[in-house]
Amino acid sequence: MNSLLNGHFFLIKIFFNLWSIHNNALKNCSKSSLERLKIRNGGILRGQKNSQSNQLKFMNLSAQEKEQVKAFLIYLQDKICQELTQLDEKEKFTEQCWVMKGKSDCRSRLMTKGRLFEQAGVNFSDVCGNALPHSASSRRPELAGRAFQAMGVSVVIHPLNPYLPTSHANVRFFVAEKPGEEPVWWFGGGFDLTPFYGFEEDAIHWHKTAQALCKPFGKEKYSQYKKWCDDYFYIKHRNEARGIGGLFFDDLNTPDFNTCFDFIKAVGEGFLTAYLPIIEKRQNMTWGKKEREFQLYRRGRYVEFNLVWDRGTLFGLQTGGRSESILMSLPPRVRWECNYQPEAGSPEAELYNHFLKPKDWLA
Amino acid sequence: MNSLLNGHFFLIKIFFNLWSIHNNALKNCSKSSLERLKIRNGGILRGQKNSQSNQLKFMNLSAQEKEQVKAFLIYLQDKICQELTQLDEKEKFTEQCWVMKGKSDCRSRLMTKGRLFEQAGVNFSDVCGNALPHSASSRRPELAGRAFQAMGVSVVIHPLNPYLPTSHANVRFFVAEKPGEEPVWWFGGGFDLTPFYGFEEDAIHWHKTAQALCKPFGKEKYSQYKKWCDDYFYIKHRNEARGIGGLFFDDLNTPDFNTCFDFIKAVGEGFLTAYLPIIEKRQNMTWGKKEREFQLYRRGRYVEFNLVWDRGTLFGLQTGGRSESILMSLPPRVRWECNYQPEAGSPEAELYNHFLKPKDWLA
Repeated sequence: MNSLLNGHFFLIKIFFNLWSIHNNALKNCSKSSLERLKIRNGGILRGQKNSQSNQLKFMNLSAQEKEQVKAFLIYLQDKICQELTQLDEKEKFTEQCWVMKGKSDCRSRLMTKGRLFEQAGVNFSDVCGNALPHSASSRRPELAGRAFQAMGVSVVIHPLNPYLPTSHANVRFFVAEKPGEEPVWWFGGGFDLTPFYGFEEDAIHWHKTAQALCKPFGKEKYSQYKKWCDDYFYIKHRNEARGIGGLFFDDLNTPDFNTCFDFIKAVGEGFLTAYLPIIEKRQNMTWGKKEREFQLYRRGRYVEFNLVWDRGTLFGLQTGGRSESILMSLPPRVRWECNYQPEAGSPEAELYNHFLKPKDWLA
Repeated sequence: MNSLLNGHFFLIKIFFNLWSIHNNALKNCSKSSLERLKIRNGGILRGQKNSQSNQLKFMNLSAQEKEQVKAFLIYLQDKICQELTQLDEKEKFTEQCWVMKGKSDCRSRLMTKGRLFEQAGVNFSDVCGNALPHSASSRRPELAGRAFQAMGVSVVIHPLNPYLPTSHANVRFFVAEKPGEEPVWWFGGGFDLTPFYGFEEDAIHWHKTAQALCKPFGKEKYSQYKKWCDDYFYIKHRNEARGIGGLFFDDLNTPDFNTCFDFIKAVGEGFLTAYLPIIEKRQNMTWGKKEREFQLYRRGRYVEFNLVWDRGTLFGLQTGGRSESILMSLPPRVRWECNYQPEAGSPEAELYNHFLKPKDWLA
């Protein structure tokens, strides 16, 4: 059960520096830590208020904030699933839940063999541990050993039609706590697009949506998070971008909780605003064996990135996470072909030469 | 070109401890080192004999031994390709060569879309570098920084018919040298089988062949190398063996060169004795969509092992090796299915319950 939770935890997509939280932390979760979290989350604070007033006052506040984030994440998961189901028209999501009171609350949703979506995974998870290890807090060594709570929504969509791009989105929230001290919290997330056949106007729409949602939060946000995304989703052994990028961010905790939370909401909602119109616009494009074969070939790159470079995936698998949950991101069908080269001047070659080169789409 | 060679070097299958040889070593290959290797391999020793008699005397001997190994490896590659071509009846191997005098001599052979073999790669490579890094010689720190030569043959066969097992074989030879000191050399290699549908008698034949070829070399060899194989080809995140094992060994340099070389020959030839009869026996079994789907699903495990756990593959990709060569081991078509469970009592369930549990097949 521990490994199951651990794996699910990784569905929050540990792209960030949180290396070895998930395993030992949960395993070692002491009763007192669980009780504390239970109290915190349940708001049953009166009994302990007198003896630890500062701590509880803070925790009470934090509990409210966390509940807000959790409520939003659950709403977001529901909304994404609803929108995708409505668009697909054929298939629905099936759900698997794993709940351990005070430890985890995970809700995995999967659609397969849809009209549009060959596979779509939309996962919510909320897990806690009693010791954020040093390696998980390398940028902030003062957090080592703190209790933590991590929650998020992770989305990976593999459409059937090769003219529809694969997409990935994630929003996540972390709180690292220590009795008697200020909690430290931060958000992370983003979304990125992986087309098989590139459309200039879709790429511009995708990035315009990203830019627009970032705008109220600061002039530099879009270009900063766009670059972070290009850097992270780069398949180094192929010298290729995984796709056309989007947004990627981590360690977001300024200027204040509400502003950061608003940004997360904008990213979560913005993903749908960015992705769904592309699906709607391209869904009726006809495709044949040639396009399907190219899609399956390019999906191999997705597998390579996720298994070789994605820090969270790799670490999760190597430390005993639940593989079925971690590997939900892998495409349902894939092929490899040695020494494949796209025909010069073909749409396949254009993907490599134009779309998979990180660039300013809004220039 | 360097990365191309480096990638090819990895086709020797760096399962062993040679971590970071391939990249910087070749890049930094100095002219003097290259000259030395050229002289050594060409046997043009007279001109320098007087000034460095001990060294050259030793090198002359070593050159002969290395030439013997190289000749055997080239013979082995040819023989494996011939036997597979003969068996396939439909397709032949295509060849790609990369030769840089004194640096590398690589010959990659690939068959695709055969009658029996959906993809078969049989690669010979011979590369040298001027500095065996410390990380590549962790078991023998005294070798750090030595010049080295590494040669080998690596085979990965993905049959089309799901009743035919995937197989992998490798033999390799390393020499680490330092002017004025004894060279250190060692062999490594082995072969392992990955069935999709298990046949008890095939597993017994496979291991009997392995046992028989080990027998002249010592009572414990088979059980020792069989266990090493089970341990190495274990997919930890799935708690499953990759297949039914076989032999895996490294650091082989006792009691003497000739005995070790004889063992390598026995392993190389033994692979064909072990594999070909299984292909011949099962090639006409009829299969349908169900079996093909299971094969594609199980091939996902092969991908997972190679990209997540195989040290050589992972290191090669993460340090800039030639990805096309490194990833030749990946199956041509693969699928993933979340939460798949084989039907109780089915041949698919039997694979998990009986064949993928490491055991003594000859008990």
